[in-house]
Amino acid sequence: MLKKLWKNIWARRAVTALAGLLIWITPIPWGLQPEAWQLFTIFITAILAVLLDALSIFTASLLAMVIAVLAGVLGTEKAFSGFSEDFMLLILSAFLVSKGVVKSGLGNRIAFLLIRRFGHSTLNLGYCIVATDALLGPAIPSNTARSGVLYPIVLPLCLDTGSSPEDETRHRSGSYLMMVSIASLTVSSALWLTAMAANPIAAGLGGQYGVEMDFVNWLLVSSVPSLLAMAALPYILYRLFPPTAKATPEAPRAAAKALKEMGRLSSKEKVMGATFVGMVILWGLAGLLGISMAIIAFMGLAVMLLFNIFSIKDLRREGGDALETFIWFAIMYVMSSALNELGFMATLGKQIAGYMQGLSWLQAYVLLILIYVLIHYLFVSQTAQLLALFGVFLEVGVNAQVPVGLMAYMLAFATNFFAALSPQASSANILFAGSGYLTPQEIYRNGAIITIANFVIYMVCTPWVLWMGN
Amino acid sequence: MLKKLWKNIWARRAVTALAGLLIWITPIPWGLQPEAWQLFTIFITAILAVLLDALSIFTASLLAMVIAVLAGVLGTEKAFSGFSEDFMLLILSAFLVSKGVVKSGLGNRIAFLLIRRFGHSTLNLGYCIVATDALLGPAIPSNTARSGVLYPIVLPLCLDTGSSPEDETRHRSGSYLMMVSIASLTVSSALWLTAMAANPIAAGLGGQYGVEMDFVNWLLVSSVPSLLAMAALPYILYRLFPPTAKATPEAPRAAAKALKEMGRLSSKEKVMGATFVGMVILWGLAGLLGISMAIIAFMGLAVMLLFNIFSIKDLRREGGDALETFIWFAIMYVMSSALNELGFMATLGKQIAGYMQGLSWLQAYVLLILIYVLIHYLFVSQTAQLLALFGVFLEVGVNAQVPVGLMAYMLAFATNFFAALSPQASSANILFAGSGYLTPQEIYRNGAIITIANFVIYMVCTPWVLWMGN
Repeated sequence: MLKKLWKNIWARRAVTALAGLLIWITPIPWGLQPEAWQLFTIFITAILAVLLDALSIFTASLLAMVIAVLAGVLGTEKAFSGFSEDFMLLILSAFLVSKGVVKSGLGNRIAFLLIRRFGHSTLNLGYCIVATDALLGPAIPSNTARSGVLYPIVLPLCLDTGSSPEDETRHRSGSYLMMVSIASLTVSSALWLTAMAANPIAAGLGGQYGVEMDFVNWLLVSSVPSLLAMAALPYILYRLFPPTAKATPEAPRAAAKALKEMGRLSSKEKVMGATFVGMVILWGLAGLLGISMAIIAFMGLAVMLLFNIFSIKDLRREGGDALETFIWFAIMYVMSSALNELGFMATLGKQIAGYMQGLSWLQAYVLLILIYVLIHYLFVSQTAQLLALFGVFLEVGVNAQVPVGLMAYMLAFATNFFAALSPQASSANILFAGSGYLTPQEIYRNGAIITIANFVIYMVCTPWVLWMGN
Repeated sequence: MLKKLWKNIWARRAVTALAGLLIWITPIPWGLQPEAWQLFTIFITAILAVLLDALSIFTASLLAMVIAVLAGVLGTEKAFSGFSEDFMLLILSAFLVSKGVVKSGLGNRIAFLLIRRFGHSTLNLGYCIVATDALLGPAIPSNTARSGVLYPIVLPLCLDTGSSPEDETRHRSGSYLMMVSIASLTVSSALWLTAMAANPIAAGLGGQYGVEMDFVNWLLVSSVPSLLAMAALPYILYRLFPPTAKATPEAPRAAAKALKEMGRLSSKEKVMGATFVGMVILWGLAGLLGISMAIIAFMGLAVMLLFNIFSIKDLRREGGDALETFIWFAIMYVMSSALNELGFMATLGKQIAGYMQGLSWLQAYVLLILIYVLIHYLFVSQTAQLLALFGVFLEVGVNAQVPVGLMAYMLAFATNFFAALSPQASSANILFAGSGYLTPQEIYRNGAIITIANFVIYMVCTPWVLWMGN
């Protein structure tokens, strides 16, 4: 009876609304500003609505924004500010570029080449993605941009192994490979100092405590846990979120045949390939040249339009999912960032610090990292959490006698390995979350699995980090 | 031979690029900053590319932004700022809402009702649009918002009279009715003080010169020229941009039959109708309540999503054109506003003022209004031009002995009646420009016709404005 009622979407919506109402009228703790508590209520209720499948992530975000603005908790200007954020437009343009890579045939060719060589099992393809991502890591100093390189390779990989986002074949290989991509990016970002935009900030903050985190040190310290995670994650997901197509001995032969049918590189593929490689190179040099990553992606898009690899008609027909993703992610980002600005995160951090009294350094260390990871459910940007809480947690850890090098490195790694926690936990997830192969619920569930696995692996490697990092 | 070459898009692109280059290397006039001249070059070349059909308006805008940023003429932050502008998001959300109105069946029902009553000729339907728009004018204090109300009525009107944006049937009725809508909004906005967001600003500036422009005065002064224009425009377009379906005596009968088949209002139509009416009421009260128009539209969108009138699937499938429109218009807007901020517009205005020496007041008056209208080719917002140049032109006019009331009113009317000059000349054009029924070239051509007609009509009414307005 209850179960049947639960199948009714309006029942789930009523429960969500009730939960939101209860949080709203809860006495405001810790001397927070009322606006901070109300915004927290709206934000967490939106997340709950998605978890309970009461609302799509788009509708939940939209409603949350409207309610927050009408309640006077969020100014209109702030509410809309996400739409002009550089990395938001990077996601948008990378999403459109990826369509061109597929459209040109280049994506398929790369996918067929990979399948021909590694495609006898879907697990293998998962490892393929992880290896590609890890190798691209040092070259592309933004996990968001790197997701823009991976996605147009992974998408045809899914399509060409008979998995479509439109129907239940999505579970054949697609859902698994998309989830592996999200997992992979958490680790590739932790592996290299230059693989994620916030890593150098962490290194700078660590430096203030005398921890030298340069390119080589970082790689050395992170290598053991990161390589372990790279080895483990595809397999763990393979067991807990299995693709329905496992052994696919016929796939390499089919791919070889398809490659033969494709013939030589078409002129569109050549232009697309040159554009894509150019974008990757420019992304690598973006910091040096001082060019925005989004502008580079827009440039790539413009070239594709000029050469009709991706046409305006294609944009009109296929741009809807990019728009959907752009809107909900921009809203989620703004909500979280406003929550941060209202002091919610800092207050939470200080409260937690209060509980660390009387613990051994090892206890404090494990607890602090765990809490740092869990708080990420509230954040829609890794960099924002790093800026808001890295310093607080490092300070609390040091005061609790945690060796400073260990604390600094582990917080820095955590800032990367918690990135699979929710669809919006990292801008690098967004393309995969928007692919249609994964429901938000699947991302939350498997994101939790990935994060637990990462947490355990990096924690187990504590002796190594302690040894190399201090 | 040359004509054949011209058919090659790359030839037209080469000519555009050459023209751009020539402007770029022209010695910078009037002591302008180099950045101002370079940005002007990029902007005008983009417009030229669209006019010559060398680039789509989307590609032209994208390229212009990329070039302007890479050339260091436009900062990245400024370049992206358009995406979070309130009225930009109003257009985006209104675009999506209009899809829901059509999807729910409500748009068709309203269209069929109009066709049953007025549909025996396409010209009649044109007058229908003008009348609806004019009556909505005093209630909706933003022409952009009003375009969001008109568009979901006009679109099914086109579709249900057998005109599709996909093929050549677009000329049956659609292209004509979309163009009439653009024309109509120029005049409905001029008719009422409260029909366009910038009108009260004009009234305020006029007040500083002692011209009392309240609701009644404004209506009185504008009534004669505006009613004349309302009568003339649908007919002028009917002659110069004729729909291929002219007399359609069978249409009312077909509409009556279709209405019978639709039966009674469906629940989706009811929800959509209530939402739509609610939005119109809130738009009318937005200023009073201090709520952003875009938030109201987003709220309407959220309701539509909640009740599955417009689903996430619909958004993914049909959101591409909204995204396309959103991106190019945001870029165009930013380019024009940056040009303004760099002092280009003000310098241009002062140069023009210099040429007014020694003219009679009537000559100065006609010339000033003409130039004020032509300069709008450079502007992507009516309000921006008003803020940049209304004061300058009013001052120059008064110094040249033009009666101050005449000058103030006519500049205020011109700020509305020049709004059809280009696709981007007003945010109220954007939905119609994005409908697929009109090419940019058609909008430029017919926009010029509309603007000339408006100019002549309002100028001929100078005695009335002089009599009532001083």
